[in-house]
Order: sequence, then C-alpha cells, then structure tokens
Amino acid sequence: MLGSTHGTLTTDSRRARVVACGEQPAPAVHGRPAEPDDLDVSGRPLYCEVPDLDRLFRPESLAVIGASDAEGRPNTGITRRLVDWAGRAGARLHPVHPSRPSVFGLPCSRTVADLPEQVDLAVLLVADPLPVIEELAQAKVKFAVVFASGFAETGDEGAAAQARLTAAVERSGLRLLGPNTNLNAFERFRDDLDGPAIALITQSGHQGRPVFALQELGVRLSHWAPTGNEADLETADFLSYFAERPEVGAIAAYVEGIKDGRAFLLAADRCARRKVPVVAVKVGRTEAGARTAASHTGKLTGADAVVDAALRQYGVIRVDGLDELQDTATLLARARPPRADGVVVYSISGGTGAHVADLAAGAGLRLPVLSEAKQAELHQWIPEYLSVANPVDNGGHPVGDERGPRIIRAILEDPSVGVLICPVTGPFPPLSDRLAQDLVDAAERTDKLVCVVWGSPVGTERAYREVLLGSSRVVTFRTVANCVSAVRAYLDHHRFVDGYRSPFDEAPRTPSPSSRKARALLRPGQQLSEHAAKQLLRAYGIRVPREQLVTSAAAAVRAAGLVGYPVVMKASGARIAHKTELGLVKIGLTSASQVRDAYRELTDIARYEDIALDGVLVCQMVERGVEMVVGASHDPLFGPTVTVGLGGVLVEVLRDTAVRVPPFGEEQVRGMCAELRGRALLDGVRGRPPADLDALVEVVLRVQRMALELGDELAELDVNPLMVLPRGQGAVALDALVVCR
Amino acid sequence: MLGSTHGTLTTDSRRARVVACGEQPAPAVHGRPAEPDDLDVSGRPLYCEVPDLDRLFRPESLAVIGASDAEGRPNTGITRRLVDWAGRAGARLHPVHPSRPSVFGLPCSRTVADLPEQVDLAVLLVADPLPVIEELAQAKVKFAVVFASGFAETGDEGAAAQARLTAAVERSGLRLLGPNTNLNAFERFRDDLDGPAIALITQSGHQGRPVFALQELGVRLSHWAPTGNEADLETADFLSYFAERPEVGAIAAYVEGIKDGRAFLLAADRCARRKVPVVAVKVGRTEAGARTAASHTGKLTGADAVVDAALRQYGVIRVDGLDELQDTATLLARARPPRADGVVVYSISGGTGAHVADLAAGAGLRLPVLSEAKQAELHQWIPEYLSVANPVDNGGHPVGDERGPRIIRAILEDPSVGVLICPVTGPFPPLSDRLAQDLVDAAERTDKLVCVVWGSPVGTERAYREVLLGSSRVVTFRTVANCVSAVRAYLDHHRFVDGYRSPFDEAPRTPSPSSRKARALLRPGQQLSEHAAKQLLRAYGIRVPREQLVTSAAAAVRAAGLVGYPVVMKASGARIAHKTELGLVKIGLTSASQVRDAYRELTDIARYEDIALDGVLVCQMVERGVEMVVGASHDPLFGPTVTVGLGGVLVEVLRDTAVRVPPFGEEQVRGMCAELRGRALLDGVRGRPPADLDALVEVVLRVQRMALELGDELAELDVNPLMVLPRGQGAVALDALVVCR
Repeated sequence: MLGSTHGTLTTDSRRARVVACGEQPAPAVHGRPAEPDDLDVSGRPLYCEVPDLDRLFRPESLAVIGASDAEGRPNTGITRRLVDWAGRAGARLHPVHPSRPSVFGLPCSRTVADLPEQVDLAVLLVADPLPVIEELAQAKVKFAVVFASGFAETGDEGAAAQARLTAAVERSGLRLLGPNTNLNAFERFRDDLDGPAIALITQSGHQGRPVFALQELGVRLSHWAPTGNEADLETADFLSYFAERPEVGAIAAYVEGIKDGRAFLLAADRCARRKVPVVAVKVGRTEAGARTAASHTGKLTGADAVVDAALRQYGVIRVDGLDELQDTATLLARARPPRADGVVVYSISGGTGAHVADLAAGAGLRLPVLSEAKQAELHQWIPEYLSVANPVDNGGHPVGDERGPRIIRAILEDPSVGVLICPVTGPFPPLSDRLAQDLVDAAERTDKLVCVVWGSPVGTERAYREVLLGSSRVVTFRTVANCVSAVRAYLDHHRFVDGYRSPFDEAPRTPSPSSRKARALLRPGQQLSEHAAKQLLRAYGIRVPREQLVTSAAAAVRAAGLVGYPVVMKASGARIAHKTELGLVKIGLTSASQVRDAYRELTDIARYEDIALDGVLVCQMVERGVEMVVGASHDPLFGPTVTVGLGGVLVEVLRDTAVRVPPFGEEQVRGMCAELRGRALLDGVRGRPPADLDALVEVVLRVQRMALELGDELAELDVNPLMVLPRGQGAVALDALVVCR
Repeated sequence: MLGSTHGTLTTDSRRARVVACGEQPAPAVHGRPAEPDDLDVSGRPLYCEVPDLDRLFRPESLAVIGASDAEGRPNTGITRRLVDWAGRAGARLHPVHPSRPSVFGLPCSRTVADLPEQVDLAVLLVADPLPVIEELAQAKVKFAVVFASGFAETGDEGAAAQARLTAAVERSGLRLLGPNTNLNAFERFRDDLDGPAIALITQSGHQGRPVFALQELGVRLSHWAPTGNEADLETADFLSYFAERPEVGAIAAYVEGIKDGRAFLLAADRCARRKVPVVAVKVGRTEAGARTAASHTGKLTGADAVVDAALRQYGVIRVDGLDELQDTATLLARARPPRADGVVVYSISGGTGAHVADLAAGAGLRLPVLSEAKQAELHQWIPEYLSVANPVDNGGHPVGDERGPRIIRAILEDPSVGVLICPVTGPFPPLSDRLAQDLVDAAERTDKLVCVVWGSPVGTERAYREVLLGSSRVVTFRTVANCVSAVRAYLDHHRFVDGYRSPFDEAPRTPSPSSRKARALLRPGQQLSEHAAKQLLRAYGIRVPREQLVTSAAAAVRAAGLVGYPVVMKASGARIAHKTELGLVKIGLTSASQVRDAYRELTDIARYEDIALDGVLVCQMVERGVEMVVGASHDPLFGPTVTVGLGGVLVEVLRDTAVRVPPFGEEQVRGMCAELRGRALLDGVRGRPPADLDALVEVVLRVQRMALELGDELAELDVNPLMVLPRGQGAVALDALVVCR
C-alpha cells in the first residue's frame, strides 16, 4: 500500500470549513431553527458548522514535512510511527525533506510543490510552520498538523507568533490541528472491539493517555483529537464532528481552557440535540488550577461558576478526575436509554448491600423497594431471612448454582428497575467467577444497564480481566463512588436530552422596542443614579415603586402625597454606594412633618459626606415580600451572564446565587431558583405566603433580554433588592445599580 | 507443634477485662486524668479499659467446638483452615466433638471439660453457643469466637437470644467475639512486609476483604477483627487494643452501627492521645443506608450529623468508600509526622501539573510557590521555558538521566515542602520505569512523604507492580482524588493530634450549684413557659433581658417603667408555640398608652385563640445584635448533644447549624462557629460591628453544662434567638423553649 504513492487523486476540493459530514438540519422542536448566518441580538452566532474532518482522521494520502530517518533525530521516531500508521491505515505517505532522496525507503519530495499528488493531510515536524502554510494552501492540502511548540503557551511573544499562524491559516483555506500537538490522532486503535465507541478530545496529550488505555480494558475508542494550542481547529469543532459520527457513543474531553465560549456552547448544543453525551474534565475549579492551566494553554479563563453553569445548561457532564472521565464515558457510550430510573443493588453480603445502597442514595439515585410479588419470586431462590427488598442480599450460596442467573433475570425483568449494580467486594473464585459470567450473560439478553464494581485492589483476577472486561455490555467499575456517580450522570443525561429544547432556536435576533428607550438612558463610563437605573428597568417592563425625584422639602411633601404614605426617602446621585450604611435611606415615613425632617437630614448628611445629589427620591414603601437580587454581568469567555440570588445581607454573607449564560429559557430560570440553598424562603416559611415565583422568573427573563441587548454597554447591573411579593402580586425592583462601560 | 497438645499450661488466669496490655496512664495534659471509676456528671464513664486481646489473636492453644473432617460438612472447611492456621502460628489445636475420636488426625475431646489443657481460645462452630459458654467459663477459657448467625441481625427474637448470650458471657468472665463472625481473625497474614501496619476492624467480613487484599500490593496488615454482632467485644475494644500495639501504624474500621456511643468515643480518645490514626467507613450517610445497615446489624443508629461530628471531635477520619479506606489507611500507616504542610506537584507534563494542582487546591491542600532560589536550582536541570514554581513541570526529558533524582532531591530538601505528589498519568516505560525507581530511592532517604498517582487504568505495568508497590515508603494511589484527600487527612490528623487535649480529663464530675436551682424549675412531661425557661437559663448564668411577668395592664405599665422603654410585650404560657405568627409579640412599645393597648390586644388574641396564659411578659428591648440559636437535644447513641446555628428564619430555611457531643472544650465551640456557612454575620457585615464571639462561646459552654446535668430530664432546650451583641457587650437570650421529659 505504501508503494502506491503515485495513485490517482480521489478527493475533491470542497472546503472542509463549509460542508458538514452527514449534516442534516436539526429538527425544529420549537422556535425558528438557527441557520448559518443567524446572529442573536448581541451579535453572537446562533449556528455552528460541522467541519468535515474525515480526511484529517482517515487521510488517503499524507505528507510528512521534515521527515527523517537519521539515527538520533527526534523527527525520526515520529516519522517511523507515521509510516507504520499509514501502512496500517492504507494511506499513501510522502516524506518531504530538502536534501534526502528517500526516507525509510520512501521517495522523498524536496518541497511541498514537488509532492507527487494532492494530499489530504500534511504533518509538519518543522520548527517554524508559518512559511509552510502558504505552500500547503497552494498545493490544496486540506489539513495540517503542527507539532512545533513555543506559541501561546510560552507567553506574549509566542502568542503573537500563534496569531500570525492563525491569520495565515485563515487566508489559506486549510484547517490546522495544533500547534503544540502530537501523534495522538495517529495512535494504534484496536479494531476488534464491539459497541459504541468513545471519541476523545484532549488539550494535553499526556492527560488523554489513561482514556486511550481503556482499550486495554476492552473499551472501544474511535478517535483521539489532541487539540494542542487550538490556533485553528478547537475543541468545539471536534465536539460537533464527533456528534455526527455514528460509531461514537460518547465524547470524552479534557479541557484546560475554552478558546471561544459561544463556539463551545453551540457545539455542546449540537451534541445535546443529537443526544450524544459529552463527559468533560474542565480544569479550573480553583484559582490555583485556573492560573496554572491558563499559563499552560495561553487561553482566557472565565469564572469557574460561569463555566460550570454553562456546561450544565447544555448537558455537558463535568467530572473532576481522569478516572471518572474514563468510567463515566464508558458507561455513557455503552448504556442504552434507560427504561426506568430505579436502581437495584444486588450482592452476596448484607453489609455490602447496605454500604452500596448508602453511597447510591447519597449520589441521588432512587432505590425502589421491590414489590411484594417480586420479593416472593426472589425468595424462591434466596432464604427467607435475607432481605431482598433492595438491596437484594443473596447470602452467597445461590450464586454457585442455577439460582444465580434466575435471580439476576428476575431483578432485570422488574419494570421499576433500570439499572442493576452488583458490587463484588472481594473476589472468591468459586463464587465470583460464576457471578461474573452470569452478569455478562444477563447483560447480553437485556437492554437494561448492568454495572459491576470490582472491589479487589489487585485487579488481576480472571473473572475481572477475562470475563467482565471481555463484555461490551457490562460496565465494570473499580470503585463504588465512580459507579454511582456515572449511573447518576447516565440517568440525568437521558432526562436532559429527552426534554432538551435548544435555546438558540428561540434566542432574540432583533432588538426589542425597549432597547432604544433604554439605550438613551446609558451614560458611558458612569454609574447611573438610582432613579435613572430604575427608568432603565421600567423600559424593560420591570416594575419599580411609585416614586418621584424632588429637590426641595416642599416638593417632597407633595410627592409623598402623590406616592401615598407611608413613604421611603433616599438620597439620589450618580455615585452613591452603601446608602443604608451612610444613613441616606429613611423608611416608614408617615406624615408631612416626618418627610420634611427626612429631607433636611438626607441633604445634611450628603453635604457632610461631600456627596453630590441630583435630588431626593420619595418612594412608595413596599413590604412583606422576599428580597432577592437579580443581576447581569460580563464574563470574558461567554459575554453577558445573568445571576439570581437571595437579597439583602444574605447575598453578601452566603453568596447564595445561581448564574446562567444567555440565551436560556424559562425552565433554566426555574432551575436557578431551585438551586438556591435558601429557596424555601420563596415557598413561604413561618406562615408567610408563597412568593410570586412567576413574577421573579419574568424579571430574570427581562434582565436576560437587557443583558443581551445592552450587555456590551453595561459593566454591571444589579437589581437589589427585588421585592418578590406574595403569589399573584408581582415583584418590584426597590433599588438598582447600573454601571455603564 | 500440633502434636504437643498436652503441654503444660503457660498462661495465667488474670481476667482479660481488667488488665490492659502495655497500659500506661495517659499523660495528664491538663485537668485531672480520668481513672477507671470516674463518671461525668451525666453518669457516663470517663475512662475505658484496654482489654488484653493478645491471646485472642495469638493463642498458644485453642479448641474447636464442633470440629469436623467429614466430607461435605460446612464445619470441615472451617476446621481445616483453623488447623492450617494453628500449624503456621505455632498454636496447639484441640478438636472437640461428642462422637469423633479424631479430626484431621488430631485427638478429639468429647466435651470442653475433657480438654487436655486450659486453652486460650475456643472457636464455636455449633449452632447454639449459649450452653457452651458456661462450660468454657468452668474450663477457664479466655476467649470464645462464635460463628453462629441468627441473632440480632434477624429481628426481635434473635435480639433476645443475643441478650441471653451477652448475659451468659458477662457472668462467665470470658470475652466473646461474635456471634455472626467468621475466620477473618485467623487469615494468613504476610510476614515479609516492612513498616508500620494497618490493623483492621470490620462488622462485615466481606467488606474487609479489599483492605486485607492490600497485602498483595505490599501493604502490611497486622490484625483483622471481624466483630460481627458484638454481643460482647465491640469495635471500641479493638480500637483501644490496637492503639497500644507498637506494630500498628493506623487502624482501618468498617462500621455499620456503633454499639455504645460513649465506649466508642473513649476508645477514639485513646487513639487520639496515642496519636494512632483511625480511618473509618461509617455507613448511614443517608436514611436508606442507615435503615439497611440497622436491619443488618441490629444496632441503634443516631442522626448521621451527630455521628459525623462525634467522629471529628476525636479525630476519626471518616471516608466513604472502601477504596478510600484502603488508600487513606495506607498513607497514614506509612507516613511520618509532617515537617511542613506545603505540597509540591511534580510531573512530566504541564497539563498534568495544572490538573493535579487544581484537584489538590480543591481538597484544601496548600501548594506554596517555591522560592526564587529553589526555582533557579531546579532550572539547572529543567529548561527555562517550563514552570517550576509549583507545580514543577520537567517537560519529560530530565527524567531519563541523572537530572531526575537531583530534581526530586532538590524539591524534598525545600523546607516549605512536606509532601511530594508525582502523578504518572500514562506509563511510558523508558521514562516511567526510571521515574518510579528514582521516587522509591528518594523516599528511602527522606522522612518526607512521597506519593505517586499511577494513572494507567490497567495497572499491570512493571514500574507499578514491582518498583512502586515494592516500596514501603512511597504511597502509591490509583486516583488523584484519593491521593489528595488522603494527604489532606494526613496533614489534618497531625494538626489534630498535636493539639489534642482530651475532653474527658476536664469533664465535670460533680453537679454545679446551678443544677439544684434549675432542677426545681423542671416540670416533668411539660413545656415550660417562656418566663420559667428563662429562669432556667439564668440559673446557669445565661443573661436574659430585664423582664417582668404581669397579669394586668396597670402592672404592665409599672413594669415597663422599671424595665425601661422601649419594651417588648409577649404572651406567656406553658404551651405557646409560634408566638410571632399568632401576633402574641409586640415590639418597640415606647409609651404607657402603647403598653396598655398591647396588654389588651395580647390577652384578646389569647382568649380568641383559646390559649391559657400565665400572664404577659414585659421585657427590655434588645436590638442590634446577631440572632443565633443554641440548643441541646438527646441522641439515642450518644446522649446529650449541643447545637449552635444562625437564628431567626434562617435557621429553619438553611439549617445552618453545627452540633457536638459533650464533653467538649472551648476550641470545639469556636470550631462550631467556624463551621457555619453564615459565620461572616458574626464578623460584622455592611459596616456592622463584630459580634461578641466570646460571649456566644460562653453561652454554648453553659448550655453544654445544662445538657450534661439535666440532659436526661430535658426533651428539648432551645435558646432562640440568642442575641449576640457587639463585641464586649455580651449575649442575651431573648426567648427559650424548654420541654421536660
């Protein structure tokens, strides 16, 4: 095969960037499905194309620029591995080197222009790839893989070099993987394994190794995309591409930094629409980790809470360790959609059953009590004194004979059961060999999920290595923790994708009438006065108290009469923070004389504190609601974000807030409220009436609209407090802070 | 050896229960060290004896009651294993069977009375052990191990049988292991392994298997106590015994239920004094788990939050999974006391370093930035463009030559470093074999902790199996999560034991003068009126507002004058709950007429709601503090408990509380406050002054004293709210609920 390097050209010249492989428009569940040129009202894209990467992973021909077979040269080892890989993959490989006539017996071209055919892929082993890009473009090469390092990961100078590389690639029309990548895309994949595969994306080759090594445990892998510095092709491109590949059952990703927040979310959205699970490690839970990862990848990091929320909005399953990445991706690749969410724990020891049930319940799994009829059925084979309600304790002996498979079948036939977890705490070959085989056999005959936890720390036992790992249907774990969290992720994933509606289909594309009115109120670089901030809210239909801005005591008394007693009075000005602490708020004023006194006192304090006022606000007093805070801010990675939380002192002390990245729908807002630790306050406690949750949801959606339409002009927007009144009575923004950019 | 069953008696007849092995009085750090007969003021013991279990684990002679060598009998297998074990252990074994002349070639005694010598231990394989206990006692046998099941684990009838067994054992003077136990104490332990060992205690034999199997990974085990139903010997006895064994480096325990709360805590206290770490799985995090475990063991379960707090009070390291139990116990057995708490992550990949640093920081580990001088030293061997600040990224190549060991030594020599973590994400033999050997060599030459995370999912590589697992100094993990949590537990353990003061040395032994006064106020079975409850608090020196109980409007006005305006008025009666919701509290009354009106209104409401009043309280109004709640209640396992939390609506909604089991000292109270999510409220927020933390601590300690002295007479005690005033101004109990038993 390697000999036939002068065969005819079999590939066409369509641009990979435009045409998607097997691309079909996503079904329009509701709203208008996004199209390639759609932008949302914030100017961000609503659509991502799926790059056709078939010829990157399976080139028919490839060139190796800088190929070598000289002893002791680093490129020699890489060239040899590429030659071997091409031989196995049936690809024609053309070495390129300015002076060698041949490399590993293959005729060598002097330059790219001298290549004997138009190749799909060029692997660049040269230190400076930039000059080669233009040559590759002229030779109509589709893909380049660049190994060189010393770019954005090394600091500002490297980042500039990377920017030049990116610009050259954009001009060229080819797609580039790297720089600072490696051979991982051209590893030796096992082709003897069954079932849906894991596709792997990693920003660090080394960190992908354990997932790749899963093949030694019988888990099928289809691809490995080592994205390196992502000067062109990024994690999002591979997510989109893998989501469309029929052999891919789950995508495992190791992400240190996200290159483009919106591109990532659009790719995750595609995975959610296609019901392809994405399991990801995203480094940066802590500041220490985020800082180290950022310096390692040269990428922006947003706040981790925002990243975390964004991942959840699109159903990306975030895990912490590589072991969890392996285990969760394996389960999600293999498992069919659940028939029920009930989990049964089945073991040969009551102690083990109790322990695993405890951990399973702790992970949020539902362990239904089996029906009396089912328990009676199980007691045909299991002694009466053992509990079979769930966990099912067989006491050991039934495993050794024909009762074993009957018990497993009976459990799996129960309609309340979607998942069977069988912990084998300590292998005892006479029992565990047979148990393992029975579980493998049962898994072949059911579409329900069968999980085994192999608890021996050694892991060299036959039942584990040969029987369990030989099955592509059973999912075998080494720890209960990883098993129960993977099962939880599996049930959550299906719940999520079954109910998934893409927010991009419904995202606003054109400015609302509110936005023009609102924009007129903005003062670039300034903080708005409370009064102006509230007008901004009113422009978006958010209710504020009746209030008047006055500049005399007499006007204050008139205003109070119009607003209605009791009133609140507050100093108003462009740069007042901490009004309450400074004594610049007076509440519960019930008479003209109190209003007059308050006016005098507020203006005195302002004078004393040297605070410029544009007047004094006389406001309707609103009581008996739940104080919340709703805000918008700006994330470096994702742009506008929206936050909701408990208001008042609480928000400062407990930081009990939830955040989302627009666009998002009403369900996400209800999810935000449900996330709050203090959510019970909204339900009504100590005899208080439940709060008007619908009104709160509506305010959050309106703030989202503001964030989308004005987001790039607002540095900060905080409605605090938003008083959420009893159900049916709405919500009122009592104060707001708006800082313009 | 087995032939010499008629040798002379070499054991004495001292009662195991009384004499402790190697027992020395614990050093009196402070207070008076407890002595055998000491009880605290609640009547609970302050001292636990250490049973001498040497002859249980290493008997010189043993009898097997119900021995068999008949084919197909379950006892035959057990007998054979005991015979083998005795042969290896050099113990004389005497089979006992009513009809067989010999078993496995050993002469058989017909009854216990016929035994040829006084044996240390009898293993009972008979279905009903009860009649044998008396015979054993007459034969002066020290220990019995009972395999029979069907006791407390099967329900009420079994529990009654177990109670009879316990009573017989108490009369007999022997100590019993079981029933429902097994051969685990007589397993084949490896004797070729170095270093401090793990001693294992399990309530379910099956669940101990993975820890036992650690020996196959080169980890030394010294004992296994399978406690079964704990009719006599319980987990606490083995904790105490193992704490005194010089070969034991750490105790690993698998606990489903705690038999006696105080005994457990006293044993854990002994381990803390002896600085012997205890790592425990305690089943029952969830209700499902607690219920299953309780039915499996027939033991009481207290609230898990109380168990969790009690374990932390005595430094017991609680883990969830058996894998964590293995890994944490291994590290704690092997590691010497830390020289510093700084952790360095060292790897061959920047990506790996960033990821592990993220997980380490997330686990609360401190990753110091290495000094400029140290970084310069490392850059002798590591290229300049790689970061060596911590994590230290060597880029790979230095591992392959003489630079490798120099780098490791240089890191370990840094005085800020106590722990080195080296993740090997994917093994690459040319590098990882050498790296593993360098780490093992370095660990031999340092007393600092060297941890390796072997990330390959396969785990059959030579560097792992032979090099790393061959070292008794390196601790090798399979997951980063388990590594960082074990390192955290190690640093926390040493911090804990270094500062440990046993609360039992300071626990009150005699009633305080307050208790007599207080007891006179109790009304068995009744809820006290607010006024009476506050008198109870006053008896213990807890400040309450100036207040008077009045029964007429005129008296109310007089009382308000004495108390001082503004005042609060509240309806007072024996069974009033939810006063605020019913409108039975009036605050901020500033004049005689307001007081008169309030009196009328309160009595009207009470009449309307049909509530019996003993009068109306006229109280000093206390404002501008932080509302807290302090309470005492009763746990079925541990007796009195004390709780502190945020007061007001918050305590209901957020359940932001911390609990402790008495006796405890001031540091624990400060720890409780530090645990609260809303603790910042006590520091002062939004310009409020910091609260009087010392006064809060004092109130909690006084409530503890009440709980100890009156605990068994109180069903419920809640000070809510306790208004904690600004620093230096104290704390005032504004309301209290006391329900007597």
